[in-house]
Parts: sequence; structure tokens; C-alpha cells
Amino acid sequence: MKYFVTGAAGFIGSNLVDSLLEDDHEVVGYDNFSTGQEPFLTAALQHKNFRLVRGDVLDFPALATAMKGCDAVFHLAANADVRFGLNHPERDIQQNTMATFNVLEAMRAGGVKTIAFSSTGSVYGEATIIPTPENCPFPIQTSLYAASKVAGEALIQAYCEGFGFEGYIFRFVSILGERYTHGHIFDFVKQLRDNPAKLRILGNGHQRKSYLHIADCIAAIRYIVELETAKAAPHHVEIYNLGTAEYCEVRDSVRWITGRLGLQPHLDFTGGERGWVGDNPFIFLDTAKIRKTGWTPSLTIEQGIVRTVEWLEQNAWVYDKR
Amino acid sequence: MKYFVTGAAGFIGSNLVDSLLEDDHEVVGYDNFSTGQEPFLTAALQHKNFRLVRGDVLDFPALATAMKGCDAVFHLAANADVRFGLNHPERDIQQNTMATFNVLEAMRAGGVKTIAFSSTGSVYGEATIIPTPENCPFPIQTSLYAASKVAGEALIQAYCEGFGFEGYIFRFVSILGERYTHGHIFDFVKQLRDNPAKLRILGNGHQRKSYLHIADCIAAIRYIVELETAKAAPHHVEIYNLGTAEYCEVRDSVRWITGRLGLQPHLDFTGGERGWVGDNPFIFLDTAKIRKTGWTPSLTIEQGIVRTVEWLEQNAWVYDKR
Repeated sequence: MKYFVTGAAGFIGSNLVDSLLEDDHEVVGYDNFSTGQEPFLTAALQHKNFRLVRGDVLDFPALATAMKGCDAVFHLAANADVRFGLNHPERDIQQNTMATFNVLEAMRAGGVKTIAFSSTGSVYGEATIIPTPENCPFPIQTSLYAASKVAGEALIQAYCEGFGFEGYIFRFVSILGERYTHGHIFDFVKQLRDNPAKLRILGNGHQRKSYLHIADCIAAIRYIVELETAKAAPHHVEIYNLGTAEYCEVRDSVRWITGRLGLQPHLDFTGGERGWVGDNPFIFLDTAKIRKTGWTPSLTIEQGIVRTVEWLEQNAWVYDKR
Repeated sequence: MKYFVTGAAGFIGSNLVDSLLEDDHEVVGYDNFSTGQEPFLTAALQHKNFRLVRGDVLDFPALATAMKGCDAVFHLAANADVRFGLNHPERDIQQNTMATFNVLEAMRAGGVKTIAFSSTGSVYGEATIIPTPENCPFPIQTSLYAASKVAGEALIQAYCEGFGFEGYIFRFVSILGERYTHGHIFDFVKQLRDNPAKLRILGNGHQRKSYLHIADCIAAIRYIVELETAKAAPHHVEIYNLGTAEYCEVRDSVRWITGRLGLQPHLDFTGGERGWVGDNPFIFLDTAKIRKTGWTPSLTIEQGIVRTVEWLEQNAWVYDKR
């Protein structure tokens, strides 16, 4: 198969590219390197089956040209900055919603009919059912990031119905692991590099969050897309929550991180049940649907967090890149 | 109060403008006249409290300037062409999603914090629960129109949470009545004007649809916005289905229309349970939530359809305008 991967130099994209190449697929990687990192593609760029195209998903002609001849699209390019969305609303709308529209139009222009999309568990807002299943009550959006992803999901669904596309929508918990370059572990490790004696934590630390390791995330996406479950699905769309069957408190995460680093910093909580406006104090997705297909995660949240800390220690250059 | 109405020269917008002016409110009407009709504002333009601004919602500077000093926004401007969305996907995205984003940004720039939004019952896709309540299971979108409206809803919700806006989202069934210029009654009356002996009907005629008369629609929107229910609502958003507590088959509608016109045309059904790709064979919204606030519709679907036919007969000029 010949796959097109947007956001190919990003955290999730580059891991997917490596995984696809390992199994002898052809891959066209597309990235504008706004947050993507060249070094993440070092191995891929050596591979005969890989072609990198530098371009912006918002540049429609470039996108459509690059996509030509591919069999399926993994659309991972996004503005993944959930917390600071309110500082620049345009960014989420353009980079998540309009970008997804462009990808769909490029697919239509090029006769590509299969798309896998990285959505987010944030689309459930402050869920009324926890763990939250895919068909929970129609939620209210509480962040621009999630709103822009819901919009992307909706467009994909309309294209599946209207143009016979097949869509795979994955609602992720927070993903972590090798090549992770933003999020609370990234921030905590950075803080502790600067000052090992003190750690500032947004909120009261009792926020309950869910995480999934990148290896499990990639395995799940590929497993489902290769199963082609959307072929027979109503409206040619399948939506899957992606996560482990557990959650942790921010305080657990702090304990695992400081434990791995051998530090005992003073913990400075900013207080309140939310870390910021739009922060969701409890994210826990019901993953029964994807587990029923045979997929299960191989790592616990604790294992994922520890491996992430280890990778950040060995790849401190990511802190200088930002 | 000083209200800003986008799509002020449209079917719903112009009726709302007249209603607000009748109660001595000030109104700034904004319209680009792409589908809006000058004659719908004939009365309003005589009123000292009305100001018309010709402009496109996608022209941000013009929009923001026009909105300055208003207390609340009724955002009704939209591409309301559900059926032909697949012919020009860009139109829904721009005119429904990006336009709503612009309205929200103009509100933020001007310190306006209250928005009422015309969404659609189409956001429920092919609903699994009928009659469909606002908190039904998270739906799959089956048309670009609905997808672009879901995106608009999501953005409004994120602005309510993030910027303290108050949002009123109305999911309409099909609205009909005075100044109705598109939809199946418009098409049927047009066909019968051209040839009273034959009526072509998309689908098998057993599609079950819901309608609400414009007078009831306007009354409901104004009633809720003036109740200020979103002030105390979670996330400052209230969502209401708008419709009557009944539905009809397309065949019923045909009977009422031909009956009012005194015609007995040959009925030519194209067949199939859907009129077109993305047509929803059964739309019936649960309106218990808004009825609990005290609002009830005053006209039945049959009465609404008959009044619409009468208006179209008396205003045949609308057929020449398109």
C-alpha cells in the first residue's frame, strides 16, 4: 500500500511512518515543520520507500499534488496546543478544521477514498458518562481545540456519506512516549531540569487523566485501518476511542516522574480542580469498542510515563528546539 | 436592546427583524444579498430603529465595524442549501463554519457576549432515537450542511466556555411560511405553476419530515433569548430543538398543497426511501425541553404548509428572483 501521512515529522506521524516502512509499505510524508522535527525522520529518510514533501496542509495545490497516487491518508497534522487555544482562536480553526477540509478535497481530487483521522477524547467535553463511550450523549464543547476537531470529524463523516469515502476516526486520550514534545510530562521534566528542587503543578493535582503509549496508539490505528471495518459500517465511518482501561491522577504522574528522575522536589500546586479554562478534570474513555476487535494496549499508564521520561532524558535536544 | 442580525434580508432574518422592531428594539441588519431579498426589508427600512448594512459575514473588518455597540447577535446568515452541498463543498464550510467563526471573533472584538444561532435538526444525522432529544447519542453527520452547522455549534460552545459568552443554539426542523424561498413546498408550487398536470417527487413520498411555521420559530427564539436561560446554564450554553410535536409524510404535504391549489396532478415519484444522498428519511425532534419553558407552537404542520402555499401564490415574484 502507498500511504499519505500528514504531520509526518510530528510525534505521532513520525512513529507511524517508521511503523509503515518497517512493513514494506510506501509512504509519502507531508509536513510544514512548524512543529515537526527533522531528526524524527532520520531513519525514514534513509528508506527507499519514503518520500518527504515539505508543504503546508493549508496549501491546497501542493497538498493535492503530493497526495496523487496514494491509496489512503493518515491525517495527523494538527495544532495540538489544547491549553493556549484561547490566545489565538484562528490557529485551531485553520490548522485543524480547514486543514481537514483541504485533505478531504485533495482526496476527492485525487480519487483517494480512505482516511484515518486523529481526533481527541476532548470532544466529549466534560462528559456526563465516565468511562465515556463513543455514542455518549451529544456533548458540549469546552475548548477550541476540541471544537475544531469535532468540526473535522463532522466533515469526514459528511464526505464518507456523500462521496463514498471510508473514514476511521480515533478519539485519543493523551499520547506519550518516544518523540513526545509537548504536554504535562514534557513540561514537568523541563521544569525539573531547570530547578530540581521545585515543581509547579496547574490545578490541585487531583485531575484524573488518561494516557496511551505511542507504540500502542500506532498499533491500534494500523490494526483498525487494515481490518477495514468502515467498509461495512453504516455511513462508511467507524469511530474508536483509544486509551487504556485505566486513568491516573496528576499526582500519580508526578510521583512516577520524580521517582524515575530520583528527585524529591517541593510541589507547588496552583489550586482549583481545573489546570486552566477548558481543562477537563476527568478524562477516561470507554475503550470496549476497539478492544472487541482484538486490540489491547501492551503498556500501562505508569510504564508509558516512565518510558517517556527516559526518552526525554536521552533526547534533551527537544527542549532547545522549541 | 440593540440587536445585530446576520442574514437580515433572508427568510428567517427578515421576519425576526420585523418582530424585534415591533417591540421597539433597535436592530442592525447585516446581509450580502446573495440570497436575501430587498423586498423582505421594505417595512423595516421605513423604521427609525433599523439600520441596514450591506456586507459579507466573511468580510471580517466590515462585520466587526457594523456590530459595534450592539448588545446581542442573532446569527442567521448561512448557506441553507442542504440538498446540493456535495456540488460545492467549499460553500458550506465558508458560509456556515468560517462565517460563524468570524461572527464570534467580531463579538470578541466588540465586547458583545450573547449569540443566538440557527442550527438544524440535520445535525442528528439518521437519528437512532426518534423523536430525537438534544442529548441523543453523539451522531454521525450525513450532509455537509449539517457538518458545517455542527462545526458552528462547537465553536460557539468553545467561546461560551472560554470567553464567557452566552450561547443559544436552536436546532430547527424545516421552517416555512411567509417569505419562504426554498425547500420542497417552494419547488412543488413552482412545478405546478409550470405544469399543473404533473408533480415530480423525489423519493417514494413516504419520507417523514417535520416543519415549523416562521411565526412560531421567531416567537420561540425571542422567548428563549429574553428568558436568558444560558446565564445559569452549564458552560453558558443552551441548546433547544425547535419544531412541533408532530411530523408528516411528503405525501401528506403533497395532498395539502394540491388541495389548497385545487389541482389533481399526476404524481411522479422517483422512488427510494431517500430523496437524494444525505436526505434523511425521518426527521422528528423531541421538543420537550423548549416546551418545558412555556413555549408552544400555535400552528400545526398542515396550517403552516397551507399558509406557505398561500404566500407563494400571492408573491410569485420570488420565483423570478432566483
